[in-house]
Amino acid sequence: MKALCLNCTLKPSPETSNTEALAKVVLGAMEGVDTEMVRVVDFDVKPGVENDMGEGDEWPPILKKVLAAEILVMAAPTWLGKPSSVAQRVLERLDALLSETDDEGRPVAYNKVAGVVVTGNEDGAHHVIGEISGGLADIGFTIPGQAWTYWNKGPGPGEDYLNDGEGKEWSHTTGEAAAQNLVSVAKALGANPIPAPPS
Amino acid sequence: MKALCLNCTLKPSPETSNTEALAKVVLGAMEGVDTEMVRVVDFDVKPGVENDMGEGDEWPPILKKVLAAEILVMAAPTWLGKPSSVAQRVLERLDALLSETDDEGRPVAYNKVAGVVVTGNEDGAHHVIGEISGGLADIGFTIPGQAWTYWNKGPGPGEDYLNDGEGKEWSHTTGEAAAQNLVSVAKALGANPIPAPPS
Amino acid sequence: MKALCLNCTLKPSPETSNTEALAKVVLGAMEGVDTEMVRVVDFDVKPGVENDMGEGDEWPPILKKVLAAEILVMAAPTWLGKPSSVAQRVLERLDALLSETDDEGRPVAYNKVAGVVVTGNEDGAHHVIGEISGGLADIGFTIPGQAWTYWNKGPGPGEDYLNDGEGKEWSHTTGEAAAQNLVSVAKALGANPIPAPPS
Amino acid sequence: MKALCLNCTLKPSPETSNTEALAKVVLGAMEGVDTEMVRVVDFDVKPGVENDMGEGDEWPPILKKVLAAEILVMAAPTWLGKPSSVAQRVLERLDALLSETDDEGRPVAYNKVAGVVVTGNEDGAHHVIGEISGGLADIGFTIPGQAWTYWNKGPGPGEDYLNDGEGKEWSHTTGEAAAQNLVSVAKALGANPIPAPPS
Repeated sequence: MKALCLNCTLKPSPETSNTEALAKVVLGAMEGVDTEMVRVVDFDVKPGVENDMGEGDEWPPILKKVLAAEILVMAAPTWLGKPSSVAQRVLERLDALLSETDDEGRPVAYNKVAGVVVTGNEDGAHHVIGEISGGLADIGFTIPGQAWTYWNKGPGPGEDYLNDGEGKEWSHTTGEAAAQNLVSVAKALGANPIPAPPS
Repeated sequence: MKALCLNCTLKPSPETSNTEALAKVVLGAMEGVDTEMVRVVDFDVKPGVENDMGEGDEWPPILKKVLAAEILVMAAPTWLGKPSSVAQRVLERLDALLSETDDEGRPVAYNKVAGVVVTGNEDGAHHVIGEISGGLADIGFTIPGQAWTYWNKGPGPGEDYLNDGEGKEWSHTTGEAAAQNLVSVAKALGANPIPAPPS
Repeated sequence: MKALCLNCTLKPSPETSNTEALAKVVLGAMEGVDTEMVRVVDFDVKPGVENDMGEGDEWPPILKKVLAAEILVMAAPTWLGKPSSVAQRVLERLDALLSETDDEGRPVAYNKVAGVVVTGNEDGAHHVIGEISGGLADIGFTIPGQAWTYWNKGPGPGEDYLNDGEGKEWSHTTGEAAAQNLVSVAKALGANPIPAPPS
Repeated sequence: MKALCLNCTLKPSPETSNTEALAKVVLGAMEGVDTEMVRVVDFDVKPGVENDMGEGDEWPPILKKVLAAEILVMAAPTWLGKPSSVAQRVLERLDALLSETDDEGRPVAYNKVAGVVVTGNEDGAHHVIGEISGGLADIGFTIPGQAWTYWNKGPGPGEDYLNDGEGKEWSHTTGEAAAQNLVSVAKALGANPIPAPPS
């Protein structure tokens, strides 16, 4: 079983990403799963809603990884209480999957599961989780119960995840439960997949 | 297998509910499932975040039905582009389930699935779906891919679902797929349930 | 100049309301303004989208206060990261104002301003502020820049505003700025009102 | 008085932008205002939350136009029911204004007004309006009542604004009212500006 985490930080490598640090906790808790992390901002993912936006578009190899994985984890920072522009860019590119089906007529995202990891220097995590999960469910991903974790510490703007010890334990325990829920539901769907929609 | 639909219209019986009419299409497409519809506004569901808010509270018998069903369908109208106050009231009361676990230590909403049906006389359905699905996933329900349908017809305020033929076919086909996805994932989780969170 | 605060807590009087406590800071900072606080859950505000839902409906006297005030402050707790059902109930009832105009053909909410105060035992404030502000702007209220404050302290569920000293200073300073912005814009619109929409 | 419209379509020039077409109706209704439209995707706006992200960043000249205008119109398409990644990128870059003040200690977005124009081939406009307005209000922009318009036609995916005559009249009338409300409130704030926050 494969899990892919798309880290949607605004910061290109090698800058430190708080989001990556928390996402690693979740990936690390997926026992027996082959995990991979991609920092999307390191690639030139063109704006658009097709699988390949042409010359210079670096989305197609990332998409290939999404299609090969049973589990997708979207990891995103919070800016103005909302998912990062990089996360929304990923959703827009995944939107193209709506019209793609496999040999049995199923949308290609069916029977894949998705979860969300959020960090921020302010309030907004639940909204970011809801926005990203909602978009992925529209595309066909199944969202297991409690398949997310987050870290922030209000009220108002404050510290970053990596600079502040407070509350990390909750974020990690919640992330470990999320990992287990993602793996469990991915296995359940592997054993009993959703069939093609009625035509 | 049991499916419960909570119709969160603002209109008490016997007023006609557009939301109920579309929800019936979804319930009707759940083959081999024992379905039930409850119009929540007909009951005095007290404000609060506990399972029983005391004298006069008519939530406990509805909660019993939620706990007995593998599938929950929340059906809601759109007001100001948002879920109805009745839908939010239901989410608040379900919030109490966060701290309840079964004999095996699992939150009681684990291994239940949930979907959403929305009608409105204006734009807003995707947001209503996202808000309700997000709340239910927080509580522990699994949200199958594409487990929703809706009807509205923009731009601006317009007709109701029952007064306008346009687009119904899309809403029904989408609702039938939602029904199948809900039943499939409920069965998959029945066969291979999510275990208790790591402690 | 009059300011009305609708406290949308789920807790009836005389229970302690954290939301009320923070809202008082905002009202207290409105110099020279006649302020009033109403705890909506103490009244039987019927579900519906009309100004008067008939027998037993206790919304009409509250609506009268809304119409008499230049400034509306919605104060709401956060449940499942969303505005309380009482707040959404208020928005639904205010929805009826969309079709009401004054002698000059202006929607009655024009030239009124609105702000939001949020407390919670978890993340979600910015979303609650956005949802409520968005609904009020649809109805015709003007939303001054930075016309809100909030208190919560993540990550995960935690303390209440009144039980935890941390971060209160930020919430109060932000609330005092919100108060000033509300009063300033209300005065600016009083001196130079928005005219009726072009017909 | 100056109004700047940032068109946040995903399509680079010279592709046809439905969003631009509807935004022009709004700009065209701003009598006596000097208007300008910028298609953001034509520029290399780097990810980040500072005013200048360094080499190759083409945001600074756009920011200069934002600062010179009293009125900002954000025009955005709807993808997966959410604001485009380009719109979120703009919000992230404007986030830097939170810490900038003018000679009188006022955040630089104070006394500017903002509105939103949305097109889409599916439901989602009110949410897009709410998300963008909410972000701009956080930064300090004032959001006049009913300062938006949109076009889409549900249910389900359908036509584009420019390919479908239905409902345009409502979108245009609503957009003309939005234009008037933006200009009126900008003038009101020009005459009676919000002062610096209490320190």
